[in-house]
Amino acid sequence: MRVTVSRKAHFNAAHRLYRKDWSDEQNEVIFGKCNNPNYHGHNYEIIASVTGEINKDTGYVIDVKFLKNIIKEEVEEAFDHKNLNLDVKEFKILNPTAENIVVVIYNKIKEKLDPKLDLEVTLYETPRNFVTYSGK
Amino acid sequence: MRVTVSRKAHFNAAHRLYRKDWSDEQNEVIFGKCNNPNYHGHNYEIIASVTGEINKDTGYVIDVKFLKNIIKEEVEEAFDHKNLNLDVKEFKILNPTAENIVVVIYNKIKEKLDPKLDLEVTLYETPRNFVTYSGK
Amino acid sequence: MRVTVSRKAHFNAAHRLYRKDWSDEQNEVIFGKCNNPNYHGHNYEIIASVTGEINKDTGYVIDVKFLKNIIKEEVEEAFDHKNLNLDVKEFKILNPTAENIVVVIYNKIKEKLDPKLDLEVTLYETPRNFVTYSGK
Amino acid sequence: MRVTVSRKAHFNAAHRLYRKDWSDEQNEVIFGKCNNPNYHGHNYEIIASVTGEINKDTGYVIDVKFLKNIIKEEVEEAFDHKNLNLDVKEFKILNPTAENIVVVIYNKIKEKLDPKLDLEVTLYETPRNFVTYSGK
Amino acid sequence: MRVTVSRKAHFNAAHRLYRKDWSDEQNEVIFGKCNNPNYHGHNYEIIASVTGEINKDTGYVIDVKFLKNIIKEEVEEAFDHKNLNLDVKEFKILNPTAENIVVVIYNKIKEKLDPKLDLEVTLYETPRNFVTYSGK
Amino acid sequence: MRVTVSRKAHFNAAHRLYRKDWSDEQNEVIFGKCNNPNYHGHNYEIIASVTGEINKDTGYVIDVKFLKNIIKEEVEEAFDHKNLNLDVKEFKILNPTAENIVVVIYNKIKEKLDPKLDLEVTLYETPRNFVTYSGK
Repeated sequence: MRVTVSRKAHFNAAHRLYRKDWSDEQNEVIFGKCNNPNYHGHNYEIIASVTGEINKDTGYVIDVKFLKNIIKEEVEEAFDHKNLNLDVKEFKILNPTAENIVVVIYNKIKEKLDPKLDLEVTLYETPRNFVTYSGK
Repeated sequence: MRVTVSRKAHFNAAHRLYRKDWSDEQNEVIFGKCNNPNYHGHNYEIIASVTGEINKDTGYVIDVKFLKNIIKEEVEEAFDHKNLNLDVKEFKILNPTAENIVVVIYNKIKEKLDPKLDLEVTLYETPRNFVTYSGK
Repeated sequence: MRVTVSRKAHFNAAHRLYRKDWSDEQNEVIFGKCNNPNYHGHNYEIIASVTGEINKDTGYVIDVKFLKNIIKEEVEEAFDHKNLNLDVKEFKILNPTAENIVVVIYNKIKEKLDPKLDLEVTLYETPRNFVTYSGK
Repeated sequence: MRVTVSRKAHFNAAHRLYRKDWSDEQNEVIFGKCNNPNYHGHNYEIIASVTGEINKDTGYVIDVKFLKNIIKEEVEEAFDHKNLNLDVKEFKILNPTAENIVVVIYNKIKEKLDPKLDLEVTLYETPRNFVTYSGK
Repeated sequence: MRVTVSRKAHFNAAHRLYRKDWSDEQNEVIFGKCNNPNYHGHNYEIIASVTGEINKDTGYVIDVKFLKNIIKEEVEEAFDHKNLNLDVKEFKILNPTAENIVVVIYNKIKEKLDPKLDLEVTLYETPRNFVTYSGK
Repeated sequence: MRVTVSRKAHFNAAHRLYRKDWSDEQNEVIFGKCNNPNYHGHNYEIIASVTGEINKDTGYVIDVKFLKNIIKEEVEEAFDHKNLNLDVKEFKILNPTAENIVVVIYNKIKEKLDPKLDLEVTLYETPRNFVTYSGK
């Protein structure tokens, strides 16, 4: 019996969509108001969903406290109240679009999990815009 | 890396569950209070979820502003503040159940997208009743 | 010790903003797309908030099951899956704006309550538009 | 055309994570504060999602009133305002973790459905912790 | 300029509505299924709202971290994952109705605040049932 | 009959809590991680609530489209996708705490309203932290 266990968390951050190797005009055309050089920000919400067999002894797929702590260390402490472009090493070069952020978060959480467990991560940039990645 | 980008939108509409080729009794038995001949209505919420490869240049699967505009033109302008049975051509004959509405919305959005992109649409008729279609 | 007890409920209805004694042009200018002659609709949410002294014996201001039943009889059974303009006697003449609906609901609930209890009603027409009335 | 129809419901219950065949120390180490011998509780939310072909006559995959009634009989009447460990026969022996509860709910609903219909159940223990099972 | 600063928090607890000095029949008549002797439970949400003048130096009415810590110490650590009737001294005698709980929480938070600040507390027992107390 | 009409809107912005006339140490002690010199950000939600008499002719206290446009011009266009400290003139000197932002928004909306109408503004910095101001 494979069950999915999901945990929701959040972090608040500033960012800017921008490529250093593009002209200001090109950044403006592609990224519009998300390219404001002074940054804007979001209350990001994330859902990390872990799928695996139920352990017969504990009745758990994964102890949700363990999952909560991985998210805390890998995502909240790394990203909360930060400027993603300036303060987070993964986005020094990589443009912090929602798509790129969700892949970075997926990779950070996945490597802390038992490899037998599958992972899917959903990232809400706003309540109306969100992205999902499951390593495929 | 295939990522899913989702955009939420809404429209308010009146409708009635009803088949012209059925007797009033049969409509009443099958559709109950949803068959009120004077119509009732909902705040419909939709989530359009587009899946594809991340474009290495932009970091986008799809520009969410582009997706937002497709939903605006194909769904909001077509359905918002309308009577689905009387004002929307797709439901002149087709009974506007949530299942039929979500398929109509899927088809309208799908044909505006790059064929390489997959689409799934979820339609909330109420916060407790919703339907999902992905073209399968 | 005066405490406020609130109960949330909902109903789905069609309506149209419209005055019979106005020309079509005037209705159109003032009510815009809300004046669609074929109606549109909403999932209305209501919150009825009752304020009074805590009864020392029961620890209740009002038994919430009693409040729930008043809302069921006076609001849900009267308005749910109805066309407010055509099916609800209070709006045969009165234009069913959110403001007018909330006053009607307030009056219907208030007269079923012990006169010592204060009442406030909030009506959500959409998650972004709502109105509140407390009999003042 | 296969569409998924989802219905949301809820129940309030007390529970305790605990195995009779373990020592108090072992229960404490594994289940922490969820092992409080006096119980704690939750407002559980469930989403039952049924997938199948749209019936051409009715425009329904399943009449949502029928699904609502199955959930009412099998889940709400069985679990609401109950102590899962003491009052619900399925958890007399089985530890009521979210994972085990969602599998029990899935099995109870699945056997009331037409076997051609697929089912997925999501159970929210809190708004931040939830589990999903689809019989795989 | 008086501004209200609100902070939302939550705790999960079991309880039972019950008076020791009443017969079982009387408890059953008044409290119904909330009187289950084996307890049931809720995810309680609380909102503590503090009103006062903006401090010209800091731009704060109250540092929200300070308010968050009061709620953590006085409410979350005292009530979370507890049986209110058995584990919480305030409800050893007092019946833990929502009304009585919100007054207890109000009193615990109020005495930790600067007396110049006004307080209002809202307690959600479920998303549809909630109570509010402001010391009046 | 005085009714309150509320409209919800949102904007995404970066900010930093900081006073130029304080030392870095003092800013750090008082504002903690909110003082990150590279900024962080939020999805701010606002609710503007306007109270007045129902106009007998229209059934409106205020046309919600008119209120929506005031919020759009005075708040969304001024603050959305901006850095509050750098891009918004009101916060060139004033520290953009939630308390100060809500007073600025109140003043901007209030002066566009008929003076007979009362106004209250609630600003959500996160779903758990929010502030309210009504000009008192």
